[in-house]
Amino acid sequence: MNYLVTGGAGFVGSKIADKLICQGHQVVIIDNLSTGYLSNINTNATFIKGDCSDINTISKLNEFAFDAILHIAGQSSGEVSFEDPVYDINSNTVSTLLLLQYAVKKGCKRFIYASTMSVYGQQGDQLCFSEKDLTNPLSFYAVGKLASEAYLKIYSAIYGINYTALRYFNIYGPGQNLVNLKQGMISIYLKQLIDPSFDKITVKGSSDRFRDFIYIDDVVSITTGFINQQASFNEIINIGTGKKTTVSELLALLKQHTGIEKPVEYYAGTPGDQFGIYADIHKLNNLYTAPLEHIERGVRLFCKNALGVK
Amino acid sequence: MNYLVTGGAGFVGSKIADKLICQGHQVVIIDNLSTGYLSNINTNATFIKGDCSDINTISKLNEFAFDAILHIAGQSSGEVSFEDPVYDINSNTVSTLLLLQYAVKKGCKRFIYASTMSVYGQQGDQLCFSEKDLTNPLSFYAVGKLASEAYLKIYSAIYGINYTALRYFNIYGPGQNLVNLKQGMISIYLKQLIDPSFDKITVKGSSDRFRDFIYIDDVVSITTGFINQQASFNEIINIGTGKKTTVSELLALLKQHTGIEKPVEYYAGTPGDQFGIYADIHKLNNLYTAPLEHIERGVRLFCKNALGVK
Repeated sequence: MNYLVTGGAGFVGSKIADKLICQGHQVVIIDNLSTGYLSNINTNATFIKGDCSDINTISKLNEFAFDAILHIAGQSSGEVSFEDPVYDINSNTVSTLLLLQYAVKKGCKRFIYASTMSVYGQQGDQLCFSEKDLTNPLSFYAVGKLASEAYLKIYSAIYGINYTALRYFNIYGPGQNLVNLKQGMISIYLKQLIDPSFDKITVKGSSDRFRDFIYIDDVVSITTGFINQQASFNEIINIGTGKKTTVSELLALLKQHTGIEKPVEYYAGTPGDQFGIYADIHKLNNLYTAPLEHIERGVRLFCKNALGVK
Repeated sequence: MNYLVTGGAGFVGSKIADKLICQGHQVVIIDNLSTGYLSNINTNATFIKGDCSDINTISKLNEFAFDAILHIAGQSSGEVSFEDPVYDINSNTVSTLLLLQYAVKKGCKRFIYASTMSVYGQQGDQLCFSEKDLTNPLSFYAVGKLASEAYLKIYSAIYGINYTALRYFNIYGPGQNLVNLKQGMISIYLKQLIDPSFDKITVKGSSDRFRDFIYIDDVVSITTGFINQQASFNEIINIGTGKKTTVSELLALLKQHTGIEKPVEYYAGTPGDQFGIYADIHKLNNLYTAPLEHIERGVRLFCKNALGVK
């Protein structure tokens, strides 16, 4: 089969492309290398350097035909979205529109979209969210992702595109960017812990905040498995573990598995950041039955890998 | 006071600008004249021709300081939004971001936004919607407006901008564009009825569809009245009458008040068009107590005006 993977030089996109190539498929990757790395790109993929929100990049796809488009690219930092909201909407929303228009033009009927748990926002005391719950986007990032989900529904209703929107919770694991300190809660703390140039760990927000962390290999298996799984067609699906881990539990695990101790300093949180959220995964459980990595083993694998490649 | 009115050459924006100028205020108008007319622009306003989604247009505002921004401009046709979704998101969403950024930079704390009842979409058998109801945007137009509302909430929470988002239902009345056959249900039918070059009225969708039509003068009074009404700050408010009128009732009224009879032909509806919707106006009633124009008198006034200026 022929697949397009956008963001294929990034943490999640590159692992998805690797898996598809490993399964014997042809993969074209688009990436603007703004946060991804050339070295992440599978050498058996066809690589197009460019931005998915740029019509000139999309027009380079005219010579290809895809069985599915996996739109994983995107500006994925809530923090960055506040620095340049217009870039954010281009990166996360206009890109989706252009790829959907391309899909219609070329007759590609399958579209997988990397959405986010951020669309739920803070809603009173609610901590666990299912796909049927109200959304309340509190960052530009979340607004753009939610608008993209709405576009998918319109393209499904009118043009028959079978979408799956994956509301990724916090993805972590080997391969995560340890240089970019604006995205990835675990990677940000791990970087500060293992890099001797940091004498402390800076945490923006309370230690009681918690997240639902899902291991990268699980995300790759779920995402690639859905491509031909009809039960996932035209569904929005939470991709999490249904378990919560607080910032302090996470810091303890990181210290344990790296064997490194550093002081932790707490500062004010990022605007629009969510206090605590975890996934209701009943829908995911009906579609994907393999066991998910436990946070303790996942963090151990990540620490081991990070220390090896430091 | 000093006000910025975007879309001030359009149907609603020009009437709002007229009223503010009539009250003795200074008004700057931005309009790209894509659907508005130079002749609509109040000669006592300062006019900047340009697009609110263009940073060069916004930078022309640097020499001004406003007490409030009324962002009325926008691509307002659901039909056009399907022809060019990227133009739509620029027109309706990026423009809002740029104006909010400008407001923060210049310390303008008041922002009134023209949103739409289209954000509710079709939701099962529900016909009447309040501001607390779920949204389900079915057109690109509605997605962009809903994203803008979310941006307003973020700018309110973080930068202290006092927004009011007005979910306009179907606005009609003298001054409505009778040339553009892609927006305005009443104006589209009225044009076809009174223009001899049309031998029939074309209706896209069923005659049982209904809308909540609100007269232009009421919309102008409500919108300008909210500028300094603190109870409307940081609220999303339905702007409708709470009454429904079907397409066939409307056609009967138009025929009655123009004295013209023409055959009506029905075709398939526009994608994303809503079958029937009317406003729960409890919130509006608490903020605006003047009586609203009844549809029969409003249509009569519109027909009279249209026949006079045909």
